Amino acid sequence: EILEAVNRHFQIVSISKQHSDINKKALVTSGPTHEPIDPVRYIANRSSGRQGHAIAAALAARGIETTLVSGPTDLPDPKGVNVIRVESAEQMLSACNDQLPIDVAICAAAVADWRVKDAGSQKMKKETGGLPTLELVENPDILHAISSRKKQRPDLVVGFAAETENVVKNATAKRLRKGCDWILANDVSIGTGTFGGEKNAIHFITDDGCEDWPHMTKQAVAERLVDSIVSHFSVPGKDKNSEAAE
Amino acid sequence: EILEAVNRHFQIVSISKQHSDINKKALVTSGPTHEPIDPVRYIANRSSGRQGHAIAAALAARGIETTLVSGPTDLPDPKGVNVIRVESAEQMLSACNDQLPIDVAICAAAVADWRVKDAGSQKMKKETGGLPTLELVENPDILHAISSRKKQRPDLVVGFAAETENVVKNATAKRLRKGCDWILANDVSIGTGTFGGEKNAIHFITDDGCEDWPHMTKQAVAERLVDSIVSHFSVPGKDKNSEAAE
Repeated sequence: EILEAVNRHFQIVSISKQHSDINKKALVTSGPTHEPIDPVRYIANRSSGRQGHAIAAALAARGIETTLVSGPTDLPDPKGVNVIRVESAEQMLSACNDQLPIDVAICAAAVADWRVKDAGSQKMKKETGGLPTLELVENPDILHAISSRKKQRPDLVVGFAAETENVVKNATAKRLRKGCDWILANDVSIGTGTFGGEKNAIHFITDDGCEDWPHMTKQAVAERLVDSIVSHFSVPGKDKNSEAAE
Repeated sequence: EILEAVNRHFQIVSISKQHSDINKKALVTSGPTHEPIDPVRYIANRSSGRQGHAIAAALAARGIETTLVSGPTDLPDPKGVNVIRVESAEQMLSACNDQLPIDVAICAAAVADWRVKDAGSQKMKKETGGLPTLELVENPDILHAISSRKKQRPDLVVGFAAETENVVKNATAKRLRKGCDWILANDVSIGTGTFGGEKNAIHFITDDGCEDWPHMTKQAVAERLVDSIVSHFSVPGKDKNSEAAE
């Protein structure tokens, strides 16, 4: 009983310490982007937005001021979250930049790598003859753009990697290439059910290496990530803003 | 009161006559199609499926045995309708052929004109260098395929034309080119709100010319179309099946 009381005491201390540590502003991106081909056609991807929306909801539930920049999804707005809806990658980057400065950015959107060069203002017609080809040009890389900012770089930038092969190897390389702090990598091969599904098997990749999380719901992934974020900002010396404020 | 009773009598006669005329099987296609680029990306279009689903619901409400072959939409299945869900144009054509013989086909789906040649089984990677181009190949033309069948051509084939310019001219040409009986043409230029919206302004194009319908809800369009279908099958000589049965 004494032990329980002591444990309870330290839990309470720990919880209140967490709360004092998370006076932070978070930005989450979620969903796919739609890249126009012409007025009626576009390139999309199979992201449902469930993981990003769950993260925004989990952050808000912990009292963190959260903005969600979301591509087109059918999901309801998470409670207590400021939601900004966009379509294309360019619109998403612009909306993110408008939110700076922030403390933590979680880039969970499946941003299209490419958009169509010279997207048409008239519908492409089959009758005009010949088979069209769509020339693609690179979209802005939102994760890299936020991670590599000279000014107003968030303290913590978290990315996702959707891979179909060599999941951990590709995601570890992606973390370094993008300059973000953490990567949550998952396998989206057809048949894994990750895109559009309820569950995710995450490889959590940081400076310290790779931690394999068990197969869990997207909501559980969101809560575990938010735990990690809160811990990160609770460790002295890792939170530059708090140090500056002290 | 006598007049009312007479009116009621003729209404009842008229309704029961309609019911005796519509012992028909209908097939409706609805929604967009999704054409894969790789395991996570695809080409889509802005069709919501609302018009096609409304037509299927209106047919079923009139006691017509109705099958709906639907591309990916978020709409609930219409009541009393046999719904078959597909993704790509090739899957949609195959599902339609499986439904033959039928009496009336209403092709309201916004079927992708093209699919990506050699769609990849691995996710396209930005790092492999260079800008990709997507080579497109023509999809099966479901409206034309059904309209031009030698065997089991439905008595009545109805198509839609989504146009951004020269709406009536393009749609009139489309009716002849496809070999269908009726075309419902509408203007889907950006700003008209037709794709994804609740209302449609229809130009109803038949052998007899073009009839401009007032701006009305998609449900009202569906009901007016079903009225026309029921009338068509009620006019002696236009319904080959009934003649054969007599």
